[in-house]
Amino acid sequence: MQEYIINFLRKSDGYLSGEDISRTLKISRAAIWKNIQELRADGYDIIAVPHLGYKLVSRPDKLLPQEIQFGLDTKYVGQKILHEESVNSTMDIVFRLGMENEREGTVLCAEGQTKGKERLGRQWTSPKNKGIYMSILLRPQLTPTAVSHLTLLTAVALCEAVRQVTALDAKIKWPNDLMIDNKKIAGILTELSAEMDRVRFVVIGMGVNVNTPASLLPPGASSLKIEGQKHFCRITLVQEILRKLEHWYERYKKEGFAPVIKQWKTYASTLGTRVRISDQQGDIEGEAIDLDENGGLIIRNDTGRTIKRMSGDVFQIR
Amino acid sequence: MQEYIINFLRKSDGYLSGEDISRTLKISRAAIWKNIQELRADGYDIIAVPHLGYKLVSRPDKLLPQEIQFGLDTKYVGQKILHEESVNSTMDIVFRLGMENEREGTVLCAEGQTKGKERLGRQWTSPKNKGIYMSILLRPQLTPTAVSHLTLLTAVALCEAVRQVTALDAKIKWPNDLMIDNKKIAGILTELSAEMDRVRFVVIGMGVNVNTPASLLPPGASSLKIEGQKHFCRITLVQEILRKLEHWYERYKKEGFAPVIKQWKTYASTLGTRVRISDQQGDIEGEAIDLDENGGLIIRNDTGRTIKRMSGDVFQIR
Repeated sequence: MQEYIINFLRKSDGYLSGEDISRTLKISRAAIWKNIQELRADGYDIIAVPHLGYKLVSRPDKLLPQEIQFGLDTKYVGQKILHEESVNSTMDIVFRLGMENEREGTVLCAEGQTKGKERLGRQWTSPKNKGIYMSILLRPQLTPTAVSHLTLLTAVALCEAVRQVTALDAKIKWPNDLMIDNKKIAGILTELSAEMDRVRFVVIGMGVNVNTPASLLPPGASSLKIEGQKHFCRITLVQEILRKLEHWYERYKKEGFAPVIKQWKTYASTLGTRVRISDQQGDIEGEAIDLDENGGLIIRNDTGRTIKRMSGDVFQIR
Repeated sequence: MQEYIINFLRKSDGYLSGEDISRTLKISRAAIWKNIQELRADGYDIIAVPHLGYKLVSRPDKLLPQEIQFGLDTKYVGQKILHEESVNSTMDIVFRLGMENEREGTVLCAEGQTKGKERLGRQWTSPKNKGIYMSILLRPQLTPTAVSHLTLLTAVALCEAVRQVTALDAKIKWPNDLMIDNKKIAGILTELSAEMDRVRFVVIGMGVNVNTPASLLPPGASSLKIEGQKHFCRITLVQEILRKLEHWYERYKKEGFAPVIKQWKTYASTLGTRVRISDQQGDIEGEAIDLDENGGLIIRNDTGRTIKRMSGDVFQIR
């Protein structure tokens, strides 16, 4: 009901009388008042003037489901959105939803995380109301090996969404970091539950530093606000991410990984540069020359030998 | 306490007086009586004779933790065992334990399953008290791709345990079925929770038709009792499976996959035979010639081309 009221207020230029709302939405004046109070508690600035009615002055700067879904034209990604003020990790919650047969495309947005996850057990700094901390449930028909495709696909979607909303020159650092001017803006994490033969579900998570001030960021990181010198609307960005993600996921299901990898390469900051890669197998250094068909990075070392890596930390050497 | 009492009774040849038990285990006569009653409810046949004391006549034919752990000399596999009369699926329960940070090596045995899982969403027929339906939690430091190693490793361990306990000529059908005389005796299921770079945990499940009568088995399946023409002790077999599994898992961690694959080949019924493989990519037919380094099956078709498959249904063509 709150969603109906807020959408009704949003569509109206001036004041809306309680009578109009009551008649259109078929609820009592008392129920309207109660819902307005709750919307105000959520951060909506709604003024009420006797004989004129209600008017929406401003929306809260929160990732509320009704805000994200207003005008969101996706088929299933984000058609169910959950919102929490603070969680340990959006990944863990959506993973549990996956086990409980939650439907594909369900999204959880949190205002803050106390144990935001990054790759390899690291933590993603997640200060409240500053960034986008979100996890999305997908149920692709894939083998576990092919899930790496989704990480790269998400990087493409996120990169395009950031470019479109901010007009900043975002680039992808293999395998899953979004960079602006060589500083880390966003990270992507993919978790899966699988049998040997098939994936049961995948949880795609992302942390995006949107309006995060430098004082709250770790070394080497930046935010869209710092890079763009302005405040960005997190809701607009979430909407665009969900749209792009569905677009690329649908395209991947129809056309396979080739179009994804082609687009990935146009955004890549890694290919063609000299890199050092650290992983459990040790360090290797050389030129990052290409991606293989599963998204692995192919490096040519100084003896001319090509080596493939599926994961690891990349250090670009200038 | 029940475990202590049963072990005490087990070690004794004749009758044990309540006084002896009371003194050794430092519990009251009333507490002994209460525990004996509970053990009888679990199926232990314990007789009590005035002035003589208690005597253990027979153990129940159930996969009780104290029975499996009696004489089990593993370091961690099976050092914690859970037992249930009936569950939907042992896989789902142990998967949840994995998410709750349960320790490596924990085992769940169920007397029966109502939705026993097999590969590719199929069901494993799990009639009560007849078979072994068990899942084991492991926390290997592996990439998701390498988890296929554990499926083959488990097949080796299970094959050796069955051979040792029953002296039957068990063979492995790629990737994860145990066969005797071309009939399916046991299946292995591997599920994982992972990030792209690393596995968080693996649940290994197995269903073994031990004393299952033909009337309760699906077509193409058999049981150890049918093939061996005798009743087998499920507890002895579980103990041997846990021992072999820990042995091969430890060896794999030290020496890698090569010794596993070598042993697998000695038990394989698939290699060197003509097969048809059905999977999502369609059917292929040819000679199964080898395993690759990740346990994939290499088939040479009639045009001489070699094709690799990581999963699928294998039909042996005689």
